Amino acid sequence: MKIALLGFGTIGTGVYELINLNKGRFSNNLDEPVVISKILDKDPNKHVDPSDQVCKIVTDPALIMDDPEIQIVISLLGGMDFEYKMIKAALEHGKNVVTASKAVLSEYFDELTGIAAEKNVFLRYEAAVGGGIPIIGSLKEELKINRIDEIKGILNGTTNYILSNMTENGADFDDTLKKAQQIGFAEADPTADIEGYDVSRKLAILSTLAYGGVVRDEDIKKRGLSDVSAIDVEMAGDMGYTIKYLGHSKLVNKNQVYTTVEPVLFSKESMMSNVNSEFNIISIKGDIIGELQFYGKGAGKDATANAVVGDALYIINCLKEDREPPYKKLDKKLHKMGNSGFSGRYYLRVNIADNDELAFVMSVMDADKGRENIVISDEAIFYTTSTIQADVFDGLVDRIKECVSDVFYARIYE
Amino acid sequence: MKIALLGFGTIGTGVYELINLNKGRFSNNLDEPVVISKILDKDPNKHVDPSDQVCKIVTDPALIMDDPEIQIVISLLGGMDFEYKMIKAALEHGKNVVTASKAVLSEYFDELTGIAAEKNVFLRYEAAVGGGIPIIGSLKEELKINRIDEIKGILNGTTNYILSNMTENGADFDDTLKKAQQIGFAEADPTADIEGYDVSRKLAILSTLAYGGVVRDEDIKKRGLSDVSAIDVEMAGDMGYTIKYLGHSKLVNKNQVYTTVEPVLFSKESMMSNVNSEFNIISIKGDIIGELQFYGKGAGKDATANAVVGDALYIINCLKEDREPPYKKLDKKLHKMGNSGFSGRYYLRVNIADNDELAFVMSVMDADKGRENIVISDEAIFYTTSTIQADVFDGLVDRIKECVSDVFYARIYE
Repeated sequence: MKIALLGFGTIGTGVYELINLNKGRFSNNLDEPVVISKILDKDPNKHVDPSDQVCKIVTDPALIMDDPEIQIVISLLGGMDFEYKMIKAALEHGKNVVTASKAVLSEYFDELTGIAAEKNVFLRYEAAVGGGIPIIGSLKEELKINRIDEIKGILNGTTNYILSNMTENGADFDDTLKKAQQIGFAEADPTADIEGYDVSRKLAILSTLAYGGVVRDEDIKKRGLSDVSAIDVEMAGDMGYTIKYLGHSKLVNKNQVYTTVEPVLFSKESMMSNVNSEFNIISIKGDIIGELQFYGKGAGKDATANAVVGDALYIINCLKEDREPPYKKLDKKLHKMGNSGFSGRYYLRVNIADNDELAFVMSVMDADKGRENIVISDEAIFYTTSTIQADVFDGLVDRIKECVSDVFYARIYE
Repeated sequence: MKIALLGFGTIGTGVYELINLNKGRFSNNLDEPVVISKILDKDPNKHVDPSDQVCKIVTDPALIMDDPEIQIVISLLGGMDFEYKMIKAALEHGKNVVTASKAVLSEYFDELTGIAAEKNVFLRYEAAVGGGIPIIGSLKEELKINRIDEIKGILNGTTNYILSNMTENGADFDDTLKKAQQIGFAEADPTADIEGYDVSRKLAILSTLAYGGVVRDEDIKKRGLSDVSAIDVEMAGDMGYTIKYLGHSKLVNKNQVYTTVEPVLFSKESMMSNVNSEFNIISIKGDIIGELQFYGKGAGKDATANAVVGDALYIINCLKEDREPPYKKLDKKLHKMGNSGFSGRYYLRVNIADNDELAFVMSVMDADKGRENIVISDEAIFYTTSTIQADVFDGLVDRIKECVSDVFYARIYE
């Protein structure tokens, strides 16, 4: 059986090593040889392993799409438009597809699964959420018996690395981001990670699957992480908390979906607080099974390649046994309710330049009768509130931001 | 399709509710009706739900084994000999079997999987380890690509409940055990839980699967938990640790298996420390995927029934699609090396009645040049050692126990 690989970056190389170079146990599970015969890359001078006589680099997608021997296309291009075009073309050419693209999937989930169903081919995407964590497969399994009504997780390795590093070293956000970029833990343009798009896309995919109706990135209420500073990490630590960047969605009254991507304070003695660096954790809650949590490497060459190749192996076995691709209808009409379904105590830091700003902030926060604790330093004012609804507190902070820009706040998870 | 249930206790009732009473989504996944038609129970007067016109209680196993309509037997009897006999009989009668019996499986793993292979039927046992946690399925999936060389976990809800409770309330072991028995979290005879047999059996099943050769309960080095006291929990807490009851195995040099079931001190700020009460956590380490952890309810009616019914659903789908049962050979010759592959710093408490005992303990521990810290109170002596090999430290403690009986020790996990 022949496979084509689109993209030959880090994960693509990992997949190539597992399949063609016999790293891992992939080939042990096969009774016929399975190889990657073509790799699409824009650089025609890129080379596969010299010992590999089978696989070649191609620059023209048609050489893959029109090759009847190729039954599986593994798409690891990155980006959005071209990858979408390639996945769609592969499905339309009757190829089974494996992808790790959360961007494409979260945007075109219903269209692509629809084409896969029409063409009677498999579309698998285990690596799109949580890297090596087998969350997609596990979620699908639990859904056979359970109604899942809550999903939460630390879903982004870059921001988790930055927060772990800030917590450990007392460093500031910008310095830590730069360090992360230097060692390849953050992209040159870190927007998708630190503004929450990456988490939001993963949460969209999980929520779509779990709740049975389309939830898109744009439906998800998100706040970036870039306002966090060393003093926030320190203050949270003094209060017994660790700052984490959380994606969280829940289904209420059968069709109301609440979502949030935001920094959250977890007790130091909690599982979430102790998930560090490139590790991810994902929690799902079912009506029969209760809470399940899955922990593992959310990024990285081998772990992600493992998930991709696992998908390919699943398809190979299904094709061998003539099994039909499952088709899950995503036709439930869901109402996207923003973050108003979340509430909690909040930690708030506002940097103040003078007494006027101090007075202004205090006047806004005065409206919140529930403020629990205030610390005022030369440079900043720190609040801990009593329980308040997320969107209401967002509104208070928006008012503060009309006058003062250096603000960070995070819900305390209890 | 017809299913028979052996045993109508707590989990059996949960399974019956999911399948026959349409709790959960089980029936949504079927295009033909699937029901439990017979339940084996020793009490002929036990009744099924009055609305259920299909299912009846039988006391004679032959009425199930000889019923050609019954394709799946779910065995939830508990105990050992009778359940073994029933599972074996069901397989030999060509029935597919689902069981939650860690006792039977860990003892007769190779024999039962052998009969299943010979009869070409499925034998599934997701609920035997970790209750509702989908660890068996996940482990099998990861093994398709990975070599797994380490497994560790909090695998017993009763002991974890006792430890969580002791930690929270500063209570002593015996009182907490009694309380656990009163609320049904511990059995009238708690031996299997507190002496480590339950953990050991689960670890045997996971290790057998992961390492590809038979590991039995009797191969596993274990220490019970009953020596732990309130003062140990307190001292560990002061040092920044939480006491947990851990099962741990690893594969070294391809065929050497090291095992241990024992109390272990984890940093309060670790994932393991924050797994409480009836929750379990299981960690597996693969050469490609790295570490994966799975967390969920390790016991309880609904969560365990969820796992059992998931197995039944898997079999139903396979039968519908004419899929062959997979057969995994367990023929690797493994050398069982005890606990000598583990090492670490140790916490040790020895209660002393007089100066002679004190002198004796100090003379034995003096041989351990690596002692790091000693606290002596009126009643006890507390050591923290430097790193020492597990079997060597066991030997030191054995010598101490020749003279002094009230001793507790635990490895510090680092």
